[in-house]
Amino acid sequence: MVYHPGKKLVILAEGCFGQSGSKTAIGVIRYGANPVVAVLDSTRAGKTVADYLGIRPDIPIVATLDEVQDQLGTTADALLIGIAPRGGALPEAWKAIILQALDRGMDVWNGLHLMMTEDPELNERAHRSGAIIWDVRKPSASLPVSSGHARHVAAHVVLTVGSDCSVGKMTAMLEVEKIAQQRGIRAIFCPTGQTGIMIKGWGVPIDRVIADFVAGGAEKLVLEAAEDNDLILVEGQGSLFHAGYSGVTLGLLHGSMPDHQVLCYQVGRSTVGDGYGVPVPSLAEMIRVYETMAAAVQKPAPVISIVVNTLGMSDTESREELKRAEDETGLPADDPVRFGSERILQSILDAGKDLKKPKRG
Amino acid sequence: MVYHPGKKLVILAEGCFGQSGSKTAIGVIRYGANPVVAVLDSTRAGKTVADYLGIRPDIPIVATLDEVQDQLGTTADALLIGIAPRGGALPEAWKAIILQALDRGMDVWNGLHLMMTEDPELNERAHRSGAIIWDVRKPSASLPVSSGHARHVAAHVVLTVGSDCSVGKMTAMLEVEKIAQQRGIRAIFCPTGQTGIMIKGWGVPIDRVIADFVAGGAEKLVLEAAEDNDLILVEGQGSLFHAGYSGVTLGLLHGSMPDHQVLCYQVGRSTVGDGYGVPVPSLAEMIRVYETMAAAVQKPAPVISIVVNTLGMSDTESREELKRAEDETGLPADDPVRFGSERILQSILDAGKDLKKPKRG
Repeated sequence: MVYHPGKKLVILAEGCFGQSGSKTAIGVIRYGANPVVAVLDSTRAGKTVADYLGIRPDIPIVATLDEVQDQLGTTADALLIGIAPRGGALPEAWKAIILQALDRGMDVWNGLHLMMTEDPELNERAHRSGAIIWDVRKPSASLPVSSGHARHVAAHVVLTVGSDCSVGKMTAMLEVEKIAQQRGIRAIFCPTGQTGIMIKGWGVPIDRVIADFVAGGAEKLVLEAAEDNDLILVEGQGSLFHAGYSGVTLGLLHGSMPDHQVLCYQVGRSTVGDGYGVPVPSLAEMIRVYETMAAAVQKPAPVISIVVNTLGMSDTESREELKRAEDETGLPADDPVRFGSERILQSILDAGKDLKKPKRG
Repeated sequence: MVYHPGKKLVILAEGCFGQSGSKTAIGVIRYGANPVVAVLDSTRAGKTVADYLGIRPDIPIVATLDEVQDQLGTTADALLIGIAPRGGALPEAWKAIILQALDRGMDVWNGLHLMMTEDPELNERAHRSGAIIWDVRKPSASLPVSSGHARHVAAHVVLTVGSDCSVGKMTAMLEVEKIAQQRGIRAIFCPTGQTGIMIKGWGVPIDRVIADFVAGGAEKLVLEAAEDNDLILVEGQGSLFHAGYSGVTLGLLHGSMPDHQVLCYQVGRSTVGDGYGVPVPSLAEMIRVYETMAAAVQKPAPVISIVVNTLGMSDTESREELKRAEDETGLPADDPVRFGSERILQSILDAGKDLKKPKRG
């Protein structure tokens, strides 16, 4: 198996570490089980991850793969492609670095739409050194059309939905999973995107699935997770208000059939996506639309709390924003990264199915 | 080019001609430009297409490919796979017939999810005889993520939406295209499904596209069609109320950015899909949800008329149903197959952008 939590990673984030384009890199550093020995970004070489994120035993940023061994005196088992560019194409300049890694026998963990296992040159070089290329976004060959059966699971299913892409839907569920597990709840995060899959080593890359099978992929994820868990935390994707990706969002909603939704937004964004001409709607309007679409398939899924991504604000400003969101919606609002996820988890437990009730069958 | 309107077709509809599973067969017979010399369905051999559809210069139904030449004294250029089973897998029993066709040098037009060009045996046999396999559902390699630009086209864009799959969304737009063109309007039907693509020889198989690119595929279709046309009639897919396919429907809506929607339903259906436990909503509720989701990306697209599929009813019953739909919605309602598409076209012209206004750029 190509995924193993013991494998040491170098993360490629050339030219954009710490920026929104490196959200896969940041996600894996923050939440992944794997040790990260270095980040590759020649434009930030000499700095450290702590300079940008202020977290974890610090990780150096280097300019080349050579430096990892020469200067850091360590080796790595895999090169993780730590960006998620629009459309997913491979920047040509990066190919040399990937070839270099493969030649050294390092695996490549690739979350792009572009399938590296279908590139003859990369394949050949991997074959020669015995390295393995993991195309994280390659869905399993046979996904079903959704049957709607996820509505019947005994477990409590919660989905994060959002105002936009990259507002914190994955992060919120990872934070809630952590604290729920600490409390002894059989909770599981269900990865639906490349970053989540690289963090957990399993999942369905829902945006890469053939359109007819998006809901079926989400359903499969929930049915599997429900076998051994009482609280299923499904990673949301996209937004019903994002004209580029809304179909993915709706397929995920109707396939996973959540009992409840948690709405996520980031402070300071005024438009949805980039260039679509869509202002971020009011919280009330977003709640109305998400609840309307859940109810459209006779599986009402009330929005029960609000996750606010307060990146870049002070604690005081953040508290004001949370209060504003609570006053506007009458729902608990919190930023799990800044203040912890207790209140979001509590909203789930308060709303919930009884997580201790016996399962079917 | 594999598609040519002069190619003579045999349509494979084994075991289900005239039933809902043969909607591709029926669609191509009704609306395709290609001559159809026979339908293959051993369970109905000896009957004719007129026995089931009552249309067109009549077409014999035969049990085997041999009979086409032996008994009918004609040859065919292509075998068209005339079914669209759930999930798209190839019934094993059909493979022998397909191989037989390929061995005779007949092309195969395949609308299933299963890609016949990826089957080594079929490929080898096609190669040997010089036949061509057309995987209709294979999308072009490079579709973009939607940019939202379809909202800016000067042409009037209309999308059919529906209560469910297979209610008449394609048929309605084909009927409207025909009469609009007869009136001298530069109108074009934009195919988004395998049947529409086999009828017109072009299009985007939107349900086969990778989920991230559904809206982008729809946008591409509209932008291309808008270059030479004033009225763009986009074939709808699925339903926002169908938990299996709603993501496809929403991606198509947000990619094509219609100015108006035409809502289609079939009389007598009580549930959406099969086994999803979703009753068909009221017309008012369906209109509300479709208009909500168009407005969600700041491109309001009012529902302007109702297409009623009155299959199986008498003319009198049909007129009563149309009146009921009109009374309930305040919108014109008609069945284009039974009564012609004048009223639906008129609803578009009445609502419309001025179709004669000069185009941008």
